[in-house]
Amino acid sequence: MNNNLDKRSNAPSDLPVVLSKYVDRLEAALHLSIPEAVISLYQSVRYHMGWVDQAGEPVSGGIGKRLRPTLCLMACEAVGGLPEEAIPAAVALELIHNFSLVHDDIQDQDAERHGRPTVWSLFGESNALNVGDTLYVLGYKTLIEAAQFSNTKAINLRVFERLTQSVLDLVEGQYLDLEFEKRLDVTTEEYLDMSMRKTGALIVCATEVGAIIGSGDSAVSSILARTGWYTGQLFQIRDDVLGIWGDSAATGKAVNSDIWRRKKTFPVVHAIQHASGTAATVMRMLYEKACLSDVDVGQVLDVLDSTGARKEAEILSVRLAEQAVDTIRKADISPKRVSDFEDLVSFLLVRGR
Amino acid sequence: MNNNLDKRSNAPSDLPVVLSKYVDRLEAALHLSIPEAVISLYQSVRYHMGWVDQAGEPVSGGIGKRLRPTLCLMACEAVGGLPEEAIPAAVALELIHNFSLVHDDIQDQDAERHGRPTVWSLFGESNALNVGDTLYVLGYKTLIEAAQFSNTKAINLRVFERLTQSVLDLVEGQYLDLEFEKRLDVTTEEYLDMSMRKTGALIVCATEVGAIIGSGDSAVSSILARTGWYTGQLFQIRDDVLGIWGDSAATGKAVNSDIWRRKKTFPVVHAIQHASGTAATVMRMLYEKACLSDVDVGQVLDVLDSTGARKEAEILSVRLAEQAVDTIRKADISPKRVSDFEDLVSFLLVRGR
Repeated sequence: MNNNLDKRSNAPSDLPVVLSKYVDRLEAALHLSIPEAVISLYQSVRYHMGWVDQAGEPVSGGIGKRLRPTLCLMACEAVGGLPEEAIPAAVALELIHNFSLVHDDIQDQDAERHGRPTVWSLFGESNALNVGDTLYVLGYKTLIEAAQFSNTKAINLRVFERLTQSVLDLVEGQYLDLEFEKRLDVTTEEYLDMSMRKTGALIVCATEVGAIIGSGDSAVSSILARTGWYTGQLFQIRDDVLGIWGDSAATGKAVNSDIWRRKKTFPVVHAIQHASGTAATVMRMLYEKACLSDVDVGQVLDVLDSTGARKEAEILSVRLAEQAVDTIRKADISPKRVSDFEDLVSFLLVRGR
Repeated sequence: MNNNLDKRSNAPSDLPVVLSKYVDRLEAALHLSIPEAVISLYQSVRYHMGWVDQAGEPVSGGIGKRLRPTLCLMACEAVGGLPEEAIPAAVALELIHNFSLVHDDIQDQDAERHGRPTVWSLFGESNALNVGDTLYVLGYKTLIEAAQFSNTKAINLRVFERLTQSVLDLVEGQYLDLEFEKRLDVTTEEYLDMSMRKTGALIVCATEVGAIIGSGDSAVSSILARTGWYTGQLFQIRDDVLGIWGDSAATGKAVNSDIWRRKKTFPVVHAIQHASGTAATVMRMLYEKACLSDVDVGQVLDVLDSTGARKEAEILSVRLAEQAVDTIRKADISPKRVSDFEDLVSFLLVRGR
């Protein structure tokens, strides 16, 4: 591992400066993208975005990391564009990411996100379905409104095309993730393919589209896309680790929820593939049960320990972080902007939320 | 009522010729718009479209009327365009309409559509959620792929803009429809506003976008949009009548399902507004109950009868049909194409499915 990244990865998991660099412009644009609450549907949308409580009163502190739009703006600026030009795409990415979260929470029956009740758990599944659909439509609406003031047809279409293909990948990944819950024979390769679609697609889209808008040069946007690819995998594997060993006060999710739901996350897939003897029998038996007890979950954690699943996930994460950084260094990008990416990747490697 | 329409409205409710005029081209393009079943998600999508049974074996006869894409192609041709030019938009409209049906079926817990089990009832709600999302993405994907081969930026953007706004209206209408289930004081005006969003928006979009693609003339596309407006309202009110008094073998839906679910359809809103004395008390009491019995449903039907709700719906339908036809006659359109619209409107007035 390079020295720079190594040093930073020992830092605490506080948010890096770059995650707050664009936040004011971004939040302002996100607010403008969601209609006033003329019908109460939009109040539920605003609740999900972290801006109001369930009674519609303003709150602070409930918003997500805004990782995807930040990556989009970083990529745009890194390749020489003005971040302002990529704001509509960044907003669309965040709205569409949130569409997927709202539907995902229904599917997984997750009652909490960012430490707050999820939309379906507060307003019912039918309303949550509409809230998700609305966020998706608003993503396109934002992009289309911006495109009307732009003359670069080719770039607009390329952005539409990349975004739409990424959402298709995302929905396919979501579908596979649920399919894998029913299977015991998921391989690491299948896991990586699924997570690349479910989580990676929109992150790749963020860096690629940011670069397309910022420069229009396909060589540089392809380098940024590859940076996004490693970053997306890194993000998901850290998510998997936090879903098992994370501090629920920090993650805002229930303890061990991924194990209760038999999610085929990276550590679990690794453990199933590498457990032998009694441990293998135990894993097979537990993952075939209809319902797990506290003792069962403890046994799963024991097998994860004995197969070194966490260590393996961390080794892979470090490798992905190095690859993300090595890739962006190959582009003709100023050291200051490269350093922003390094800070972000270092944070993703150790984040606790 | 004009003589022509009057004569036709006595015809049986068989599908008019114009609904089969484009069907082969349309089905071929729809098939191309949905990826091969590389993952089983797409098999569920194909099942919903009426092409395969639940085991993935080809079937025939399960497809919908394809009303929206047909209207889009009719509008394009009526204003002098080639229907082929509007095929991608027509496909997008049908895919997006089907996205809304799949999500609607989850929300309403409808177990049947077109006489077949709904996607959620066969494959589970989580999968159905993904099937709906997939259909939505594929709608945009189809439009974007077509736009890459077209040079008319302004028209492309206008089509994207109209479609996206219509989907937002649709989701808002869907939300209001569910809200209205909990309310007793829904007025006819509120009902018409909701149904115009839920059902009308995509039908207006079909005729307007068809005309935009076919001519680019905003005066003519605005006339076609208004024709779509009347047609959309007519369609929904006939749907409401069929949802109460329709033959379930023809509609493919459960008998009286709208009453069981306390849907505030046009006849019910009319009855609640116009019932007096005992009938008013009975309606209020029944629509406040948590669960209706067979006897309760019979009582609702009695009040609908005594307030002339069905007659009122039919009077309104005839007026809307006349307005749709009168509107299109104002455009500079050949008599043959006007006649196609008359045939379609006449069918919508009396259709049994």
